[in-house]
Amino acid sequence: MKEILKPTMVLNWEIAQRNLQRMLDKAARNDLLLRPHLKTAQSNAVGRKFREMGVKAITVSSLSMAEYFAGDGWDDLTVAFPVNTREIGTIHRLSRKIALNLLVVNKKSIELLNTVFPGEIGVFLKIDVGTHRTGIDPTDEATISDCIELLGKTPSLRFKGFLGHAGHSYKSRSKKEILEVHESSTAILRKLKNKYPESLISTGDTPTCSIANKWEGVDEIRPGNFIFYDLMQAQIGSCKMENIALALACPIVAKHADRHEVIIYGGGIHLSKDHIDWKGQAIFGRPVLLNANGWKMPEEGCFVKSVSQEHGVLKCTPSFFNKLEIGGLVGILPVHSCMMVDLMDGYLTTAGQFWEVMV
Amino acid sequence: MKEILKPTMVLNWEIAQRNLQRMLDKAARNDLLLRPHLKTAQSNAVGRKFREMGVKAITVSSLSMAEYFAGDGWDDLTVAFPVNTREIGTIHRLSRKIALNLLVVNKKSIELLNTVFPGEIGVFLKIDVGTHRTGIDPTDEATISDCIELLGKTPSLRFKGFLGHAGHSYKSRSKKEILEVHESSTAILRKLKNKYPESLISTGDTPTCSIANKWEGVDEIRPGNFIFYDLMQAQIGSCKMENIALALACPIVAKHADRHEVIIYGGGIHLSKDHIDWKGQAIFGRPVLLNANGWKMPEEGCFVKSVSQEHGVLKCTPSFFNKLEIGGLVGILPVHSCMMVDLMDGYLTTAGQFWEVMV
Repeated sequence: MKEILKPTMVLNWEIAQRNLQRMLDKAARNDLLLRPHLKTAQSNAVGRKFREMGVKAITVSSLSMAEYFAGDGWDDLTVAFPVNTREIGTIHRLSRKIALNLLVVNKKSIELLNTVFPGEIGVFLKIDVGTHRTGIDPTDEATISDCIELLGKTPSLRFKGFLGHAGHSYKSRSKKEILEVHESSTAILRKLKNKYPESLISTGDTPTCSIANKWEGVDEIRPGNFIFYDLMQAQIGSCKMENIALALACPIVAKHADRHEVIIYGGGIHLSKDHIDWKGQAIFGRPVLLNANGWKMPEEGCFVKSVSQEHGVLKCTPSFFNKLEIGGLVGILPVHSCMMVDLMDGYLTTAGQFWEVMV
Repeated sequence: MKEILKPTMVLNWEIAQRNLQRMLDKAARNDLLLRPHLKTAQSNAVGRKFREMGVKAITVSSLSMAEYFAGDGWDDLTVAFPVNTREIGTIHRLSRKIALNLLVVNKKSIELLNTVFPGEIGVFLKIDVGTHRTGIDPTDEATISDCIELLGKTPSLRFKGFLGHAGHSYKSRSKKEILEVHESSTAILRKLKNKYPESLISTGDTPTCSIANKWEGVDEIRPGNFIFYDLMQAQIGSCKMENIALALACPIVAKHADRHEVIIYGGGIHLSKDHIDWKGQAIFGRPVLLNANGWKMPEEGCFVKSVSQEHGVLKCTPSFFNKLEIGGLVGILPVHSCMMVDLMDGYLTTAGQFWEVMV
């Protein structure tokens, strides 16, 4: 890691590959299409690894991201975000060249999409399966049937099915709680499938996809974060610490022996300001010692206690404090890998390659 | 604003220019060098405006940012971050072509900088004026005199003075509290100047620079955020709501009438996850209606209650809810403009120009 001069995202692809293989195996066992969400990796280099391992269809979170991945040969994409009808030009361009699926959460969006299209666009109705962020209320049968009827009358749009995102699984703190969320959210979607038997059912956040083994009625899953995992997922119970595939390598610029704090070059513009509550303390990452193959497991009792724009303040135990030196590096396991990846310009793999992230 | 298709940072340069002019006037009245911190704007287009208005020297927060601005003709830069000695190559390159000042918080960094330099580098000792993030404890006279002695023996490094950043001013909630922080932090620096009369004194975060009028003993100020301000600064008491020069224009993708919530395309990868506590509620922004010249003042009782990667959830009053429509736009005043700017790729000015932000 001698060549690392400033905050650098280090990717242990071997760990990530195992995370992906486990999810592919689970999908195969349960007859599910794995349509991974590439908003986490945001990288064609990573996308190509997915493809090599057999992934054929992906999920993205914006039309910009759809254009980025379509440009690298992906031809079956779902934009898992309520359609932004202002980008109708991008929708037209994409629908001409790939199989594009959009999300709709209201009739108004269908009306705004009802222009003359050169292609056909798949439409999922986004259902609120309990997160209450957005989505159609599953008990609002009138809106659901109105939307399906309107889609039926719109030649360029094709109703494909129902999509849910059990984002409330992120509030879980045990496998039991994750499974409860999984059961209640898939039950909502199964009920809709019973009413509309031709519809596809798409679901799958990282916690439920990592833990659940019963997928009755579900056709495809769309986890994203599982490829790298992070401290938030470890806290939820989706993964173990050794499944985390990313660390931020940070130069050490100051040490404060009186309070056993180390100042790292690595702040909110690298790690993001996302934090978790950890033993009653808001933390922004956990430190690890880096080595030639990656990093060791995190040291107990040490954490990133605050971040400003470029600074991170690392609270250490006395023994860990003594292992760090000014001018050296320390690794930080991120709280939220999706947010960190979005902030960084690429991955340095432990095999020594640089993989760019979408700008 | 019809041309806005996705989340777009709208800059009212007239407001920003007034913010800058006020700070220039204050600096002139108090015989201070205004060395603005361009970590906020991160843009050569904005930097040129600063230059046109008479700014001759700037502050940046990283060596990468120093290279960016040096590339646009700035020749007097202070990197206000404890020096990252791993980037010695960049330091060499920059010191050859510009007047470069670095920050040192320990003897070890001076030793690591003591290589054969082609140029001369100015060094400020960073003093902890009360924030306790980093900096030399002002009562640690041994470290201060050791550092100054070591700098005196190092031909390529020149001791310039003491630098403080009263970051604890951000905890203030009134002008009185800001002035208390200002008085205590400048008193620390004045005491050092009395002992080392040749030293320059550099200080100045946005809250104290916006409010304080007594600058005895201080030679230069380095505010950054003041150019745009934001909700955090308005809460601290540094500015009024009408001094905020940036808003994020966000497409509206869904409305939930049952809870008067509006879903915007605009989330943590645009606004950042920085939040403030506002009337007992963590908020991530406040909505404004956009118009051809910018935006109206924010509506009372409305706020961004949560952000995920791309989504923002906007809690509205019934009347504001009715003013918003799917497919339309709403502006969001940011909690922290520095973090938002870092995430976005440029500014759309209300005069219709696009100004790039450093990648």
